Amino acid sequence: MALPMVRRAVVFRVRGGHRAVSSESPTGPQGAASPRVFSGIQPTGIPHLGNYLGALRSWVKLQEEFSSVLYSIVDLHSITVPQDPRSLRESVLDMTACLLACGIDPEKSALFQQSQVPEHAELGWVLGCMTSMPRIRHLPQWKIKSQSQKNEGSVGLFTYPVLQAADILLYKSTHVPVGDDQLQHLELTQDTARIFNHRYGTFFPVPATLTSKCHPLHNYPTPTPTLPPPLPFPVPATLTSKDPSAKMSKSDPQNLATVRLTDSPDEIALKFRKAVTDFTSEVTYDPEGRPGVSNLVAIHSAVTGLTPEDIVVQNRGLETARYKMVAAEAVIEKLTPIREEIQRLRADRGFLREVLNRGAEGAREVATPVYDAVCRLVGFR
Amino acid sequence: MALPMVRRAVVFRVRGGHRAVSSESPTGPQGAASPRVFSGIQPTGIPHLGNYLGALRSWVKLQEEFSSVLYSIVDLHSITVPQDPRSLRESVLDMTACLLACGIDPEKSALFQQSQVPEHAELGWVLGCMTSMPRIRHLPQWKIKSQSQKNEGSVGLFTYPVLQAADILLYKSTHVPVGDDQLQHLELTQDTARIFNHRYGTFFPVPATLTSKCHPLHNYPTPTPTLPPPLPFPVPATLTSKDPSAKMSKSDPQNLATVRLTDSPDEIALKFRKAVTDFTSEVTYDPEGRPGVSNLVAIHSAVTGLTPEDIVVQNRGLETARYKMVAAEAVIEKLTPIREEIQRLRADRGFLREVLNRGAEGAREVATPVYDAVCRLVGFR
Repeated sequence: MALPMVRRAVVFRVRGGHRAVSSESPTGPQGAASPRVFSGIQPTGIPHLGNYLGALRSWVKLQEEFSSVLYSIVDLHSITVPQDPRSLRESVLDMTACLLACGIDPEKSALFQQSQVPEHAELGWVLGCMTSMPRIRHLPQWKIKSQSQKNEGSVGLFTYPVLQAADILLYKSTHVPVGDDQLQHLELTQDTARIFNHRYGTFFPVPATLTSKCHPLHNYPTPTPTLPPPLPFPVPATLTSKDPSAKMSKSDPQNLATVRLTDSPDEIALKFRKAVTDFTSEVTYDPEGRPGVSNLVAIHSAVTGLTPEDIVVQNRGLETARYKMVAAEAVIEKLTPIREEIQRLRADRGFLREVLNRGAEGAREVATPVYDAVCRLVGFR
Repeated sequence: MALPMVRRAVVFRVRGGHRAVSSESPTGPQGAASPRVFSGIQPTGIPHLGNYLGALRSWVKLQEEFSSVLYSIVDLHSITVPQDPRSLRESVLDMTACLLACGIDPEKSALFQQSQVPEHAELGWVLGCMTSMPRIRHLPQWKIKSQSQKNEGSVGLFTYPVLQAADILLYKSTHVPVGDDQLQHLELTQDTARIFNHRYGTFFPVPATLTSKCHPLHNYPTPTPTLPPPLPFPVPATLTSKDPSAKMSKSDPQNLATVRLTDSPDEIALKFRKAVTDFTSEVTYDPEGRPGVSNLVAIHSAVTGLTPEDIVVQNRGLETARYKMVAAEAVIEKLTPIREEIQRLRADRGFLREVLNRGAEGAREVATPVYDAVCRLVGFR
């Protein structure tokens, strides 16, 4: 299991540096494409702290930095594995509430439900006709995910990276925030844009990936294999409640390891109390040698903005058990207003639906002319 | 190469006979589903005599027998192999002209272009998430078609039977006219309807296949491997211009073997003259022993409504070379008004576009509420 790490500060870097202004960059050979950010998140339950620190906090920041931003609740992706219809329906609204509570502003970003914009599936079909079978057969995600599915998974699970390419290209997106685990899928999107442009003339910007660089931890955490169902877009991070090398046991259910945005202060405190550290009762920051306590420090750092070094100094002399509660308190302080806002918003389903409807209208304003142009290029019109 | 055979008379038979009123028949366990016919044809060039005799003539008849009929020009399917955009654009209008000229009446049938109805791709995605990979991997069409494609063909070529299921189920179709080569795909559609109904409660009728039984030849002709690109729906038949066992040669180009609906009388006469028969100069009807001349008799029979026996009697004593011209004349007589109507209609692109636009409106009137209900069942709404 990969060690969950959190970022201290969100600093965006365009992947590939200079390539971002090369001939096939988002600016494109025919002049500057207007910068546009797209990202998606599955409606599969309440986001956890890792989603918040890894993706959602970045999304909030991006809507300040880009003039055109779209965030999609990708329900078409969520049905690539079986879903209970009632839960899915609720989860879409829950996710809307969570995103708003985290700071996504519908005045700045088009926040919408993917299935409300028909052009996603339509462009997905067109792009699938330009994607060779071996190109997606060898994507590692399919190999990993299909293993856990009876009958090797569904056709949708196999082809979802193509739909993902359509999600992004439908808006002529220039920048896509992603985790490292999604880089290969973004490469498929980039290749698909190139194939289309080669065949029909330059049309799609080749989108650049936005990865966030954090000091001192460079990597986004990768999803643990115990976190079903797999997410195509976001990057979850969990609070390790046990030694990363240890196997899962019933006495240590997964939910103890994951702080959800809706967890009560008591639940958060319990999860921190149960977090496995080591037998040295001292607060230090040493991700290699002492992953357990260092993870707590990293989370503490992420929610407060303090450096890990500051945190170690502030908590010198504290026993690890006591420090866990200090860190938990910082998380509770950070999450309490978010939790309260989620609760308030969840009670107003009408408002949430209205936000999604308006978001879909905004998304279609961009998507419709792009897909119309695709139809003309392909020869449908 | 299978011997092309044509049917003498179109008599529809619901495949499976009694199953058509069983618990999972189109009538459905919850009472009668309103009968509705759906079929599709690819916009890949002017239909040939085999398309006309095998499929289009049946389509015309079906619109008299069913109160709800939809015929789609399936352009989404045509791009599963590379298409020139300009040709595709023209082909859609050409096919519209041909279908109208053959007798499809837009007042009786919704004649529409598939890509104008977004719900095809949308339902295709949903159904793909309920279809297991092995279920479509073992369809023989994929194995055959992908061999002729570099890189094993596109994702679209692999998944098109799922889109075909969506095409049919989107209208809650109860009857689908198909050729024998499409039966396995129709079985996938039927299975998909059952899987959906099992998971979400009875919703889709399990469509019955309409095969046409002809006396004395029971089989629809199957597409020859030399006829690119492969058609998902229709059943082409060719005029054999050489011995079926002989290999293709440059001196015998495929176009000689296929009478197109727009061929001039001279072209038709030439193709009949070049049709290879045998060295017995006498008109008999013996498909096993004398496939060449019997094929001419069968075509002659199909376009005139005479029985093969009558034709043999009428042409007793005639040399085969002379008989070829008699048969050609019968085909010319049948196709001349169709050819002239095609020419007239092709000159009026505005009218053809209007027919398609109105057809798409009619199709969407059926499709939209069906897909909306699917969205509610799946949990999107």
